[in-house]
Amino acid sequence: MNNKATFTLLITCPDRKGLVAGISEFLYLHGANIVHADQHQDGVLFLMRIEWEIKGFDLSLFDFRHAFGPLAAKFGMHWRIEESGSRPRMAIFVSRYDHCLVDLLYRHRSGELHCDIPLVIGNHAETQDLAAFYGIPFHLVEVEKGRKEEAEALQLQLLRHHDIDFVVLARYMQELSGEFVSEYPERIINIHHSFLPAFHGARPYHRAFERGVKLIGATAHYVTDMLDEGPIIEQDVIRVSHRDALPDLIQKGKDLEKIVLSRAVRWHLENRIIVTSGKTVVFD
Amino acid sequence: MNNKATFTLLITCPDRKGLVAGISEFLYLHGANIVHADQHQDGVLFLMRIEWEIKGFDLSLFDFRHAFGPLAAKFGMHWRIEESGSRPRMAIFVSRYDHCLVDLLYRHRSGELHCDIPLVIGNHAETQDLAAFYGIPFHLVEVEKGRKEEAEALQLQLLRHHDIDFVVLARYMQELSGEFVSEYPERIINIHHSFLPAFHGARPYHRAFERGVKLIGATAHYVTDMLDEGPIIEQDVIRVSHRDALPDLIQKGKDLEKIVLSRAVRWHLENRIIVTSGKTVVFD
Amino acid sequence: MNNKATFTLLITCPDRKGLVAGISEFLYLHGANIVHADQHQDGVLFLMRIEWEIKGFDLSLFDFRHAFGPLAAKFGMHWRIEESGSRPRMAIFVSRYDHCLVDLLYRHRSGELHCDIPLVIGNHAETQDLAAFYGIPFHLVEVEKGRKEEAEALQLQLLRHHDIDFVVLARYMQELSGEFVSEYPERIINIHHSFLPAFHGARPYHRAFERGVKLIGATAHYVTDMLDEGPIIEQDVIRVSHRDALPDLIQKGKDLEKIVLSRAVRWHLENRIIVTSGKTVVFD
Amino acid sequence: MNNKATFTLLITCPDRKGLVAGISEFLYLHGANIVHADQHQDGVLFLMRIEWEIKGFDLSLFDFRHAFGPLAAKFGMHWRIEESGSRPRMAIFVSRYDHCLVDLLYRHRSGELHCDIPLVIGNHAETQDLAAFYGIPFHLVEVEKGRKEEAEALQLQLLRHHDIDFVVLARYMQELSGEFVSEYPERIINIHHSFLPAFHGARPYHRAFERGVKLIGATAHYVTDMLDEGPIIEQDVIRVSHRDALPDLIQKGKDLEKIVLSRAVRWHLENRIIVTSGKTVVFD
Repeated sequence: MNNKATFTLLITCPDRKGLVAGISEFLYLHGANIVHADQHQDGVLFLMRIEWEIKGFDLSLFDFRHAFGPLAAKFGMHWRIEESGSRPRMAIFVSRYDHCLVDLLYRHRSGELHCDIPLVIGNHAETQDLAAFYGIPFHLVEVEKGRKEEAEALQLQLLRHHDIDFVVLARYMQELSGEFVSEYPERIINIHHSFLPAFHGARPYHRAFERGVKLIGATAHYVTDMLDEGPIIEQDVIRVSHRDALPDLIQKGKDLEKIVLSRAVRWHLENRIIVTSGKTVVFD
Repeated sequence: MNNKATFTLLITCPDRKGLVAGISEFLYLHGANIVHADQHQDGVLFLMRIEWEIKGFDLSLFDFRHAFGPLAAKFGMHWRIEESGSRPRMAIFVSRYDHCLVDLLYRHRSGELHCDIPLVIGNHAETQDLAAFYGIPFHLVEVEKGRKEEAEALQLQLLRHHDIDFVVLARYMQELSGEFVSEYPERIINIHHSFLPAFHGARPYHRAFERGVKLIGATAHYVTDMLDEGPIIEQDVIRVSHRDALPDLIQKGKDLEKIVLSRAVRWHLENRIIVTSGKTVVFD
Repeated sequence: MNNKATFTLLITCPDRKGLVAGISEFLYLHGANIVHADQHQDGVLFLMRIEWEIKGFDLSLFDFRHAFGPLAAKFGMHWRIEESGSRPRMAIFVSRYDHCLVDLLYRHRSGELHCDIPLVIGNHAETQDLAAFYGIPFHLVEVEKGRKEEAEALQLQLLRHHDIDFVVLARYMQELSGEFVSEYPERIINIHHSFLPAFHGARPYHRAFERGVKLIGATAHYVTDMLDEGPIIEQDVIRVSHRDALPDLIQKGKDLEKIVLSRAVRWHLENRIIVTSGKTVVFD
Repeated sequence: MNNKATFTLLITCPDRKGLVAGISEFLYLHGANIVHADQHQDGVLFLMRIEWEIKGFDLSLFDFRHAFGPLAAKFGMHWRIEESGSRPRMAIFVSRYDHCLVDLLYRHRSGELHCDIPLVIGNHAETQDLAAFYGIPFHLVEVEKGRKEEAEALQLQLLRHHDIDFVVLARYMQELSGEFVSEYPERIINIHHSFLPAFHGARPYHRAFERGVKLIGATAHYVTDMLDEGPIIEQDVIRVSHRDALPDLIQKGKDLEKIVLSRAVRWHLENRIIVTSGKTVVFD
């Protein structure tokens, strides 16, 4: 956590000698004062996150793209650069359960989440007053049986109209279509109320209770067109016992869901996550 | 934990008024000094674990069975009584991985596990010296392809010959047949190297690595004829990251396996576990 | 967790034979259907929490006090009985940090905390809008240097006027006087932002950072006239590393504080806590 | 974890532009294939751990020291280089409690700890057979009252004779003198059976029990001449309740101590730790 204005560069490419030397020399020659750098080699791939102060750096974001191009091409990099001052535009989808929504809105207001929230989309009206208290426009998009396509068209229109960068499903109880998901690749974050891959699909707390597990979990992941199969960003668990009836599991799980989802959203905003081979690398 | 000689009574029956009064009056009239009592109602069933000092109690184990019979019959109880001084006879099955074996043998030697270990049965010879160091007879029963039945017959013969009360599978890599399992119902404890029901079956660490989970787990459970589906006794997890390659997962998992298995064995020995509806109640 | 109307009886007394028999027979004779019972013997003391349905029980709360008196006297019990339907009246004290306040108010609104909150008392005005959103009257009682006595007099007046049963200090940054505390023995819950007894007193996160600990903690406890020395109700920790600067510790700690404090408040409300010898027994 | 032969370079110096570029260019020019790199800036200091394959690198360990000297001098670096194939020589000190000793010896035998253990020094004879089983020479150095100086002289003689690189205090119950400690700066690792700084000094479990904490802990740290004040390497905790009597705390704590100590030893062996300002940076 730091408050200086910075650029963050994320790189994925085949691992080769000279990569770090090439990148760090480039940055040095342009006056970069590095505040954080982390890299990972898995034997085949090289992944890097490097953050430096804008102050003293002699390239603008625009010029960087041109100047860095040849080096990137030489090593076959996938890369992107982000500016710490930018505020990505996040939309939140919600159904009736409001615990994740209230948690995100509070964290946003208290300055923990560096983003704008142009809108909340709910398929029920219950959470409207919460959104209103936090000054976030609420849009009710009901999803009637057999008319999901229509609802998704309206949702997409809203997202586009508001220039949304990424979507958070805060216990949104509708499954999104593959078409919808393909519009926001690696940019839809869901919270699933189990320790995936255990209890993927419906009613995970009920099934955890039936099975008699001794820990319950929650999982935040990017959404793909395979239900609950997307790259896992974060997971956590909490202990339960025979004394915990189903409502206790649900209650305990809510605290997990809030914390796990908020971590995933923060890491996404801090450009800490690279997806590779269906898994995430989360630089810390 | 206490060092007084005690009786422990475990009861399961339909929940009805007067149960606690009936049981506690019976014990009081016979002079019981209760040192620990715990009970659980789930709305339908009543489960109880109650422990009292033998000193001052006016019934022997033999007499108790007769004296308590009418009350037990009246309430339709399943029950058993155990004496703290008894030392159940535990057999350990092991393959090549010896970390759980060495952990159990050390805990036994240091007095943590109140049981006798008349034998270790291995299907490989590697762990023989460990057993020897701890003074436990080691029997090599190789399981050749297609001749498991033969091996199991020999294993059962050994277990019977040594009056074994229960079996611990300390990373024993062979699946036991339904016939074998049925000989020791709720008396075979296995350690599975995943957070069940995630990654049941073979090679769980490999699959956890492939899936990119952020926590790995271990599960101790009673063995039934359904692979990895038996009642869960204990589970725990540890955090992993993209920095952990598969060998790191395996290494971290070993510590989990040892601790989770040893807890399950200790609770079994302390008569803390009741199995009901395919789940366990573990009185703490 | 259950939704039936119940009585809960909490007992502390010297451990003696016949206690459980005496209590359970008394309850049985009056028609109690026990839904939960837990007890603890530490060798000298006997502690019990027993909960039964009001339906079918033939004594009112008023009659119980008389009928149970002789038995209680015989065994030298400290005891109290609570009715599940009663809604204790909780006051929340807060300063500028609002994360615990918003957490408690949300949990209250969502039905997790079975109590009334007649007022929030703040020594700064910042949290007023939050209280307003949740419909809770907010009282600003500024604590000027050298005039704490005056402020406490006003606070006490407010508490009495609103028939407050217990007080929660939700990161209230003022130390309460011994006189104030003595008005609400075992009825003021504080959240301290460290793993007590480590870093008691001021600026615990700063000191944790200086010391280089690898885990930070939070502790909920009853307030006594010894600063940070009261009986501990609940504690939890979270991992930190050299990558976490002081603001990261503070951020991570907030999530701990919220969860630890909310557990303590819930257990207090569910009459799960008995204080004995400066420690708590928390029946689960 | 990897099995290639590597060099690891650890650097601490004032943070300045061009550091990473300078270091990575140096390594690149000499043919280094980097397998792991991690760095940390805290605003003033720059710390780095970088590991590369020996294969293909054109400098020997001896030549490296000369070739790297000018760059190191230019940036004012404290640095050291280690070879993965080297096996540091570890001595273990132990008293009567043998759980940490057996854990370390087993991990050593199973290949988890890449070091040699030329000797165990005990001030009691109890652990001799364990050392013998694992093939490690055991030396009994009794510490008689008032004659600690004499004992330490003998211990130091043994350490020097066996070319010991670092010492692990595996629940060694004697306090070492400042003179002794100064011989092995940042090369003596102790396990303290509490969550430091809580309960530093004697009988931590007793004091944790008295205080009524809800979690107990263990702390591995480098020993300095200030008792229990040295740089913390690792800590962990486990939950306890009112049901846990003092012997239960001690039992639960043993598992913590083993795991926390073994992690610290492994990280020390893997050259992951840099001490700075009385704290550790542990590169993961």
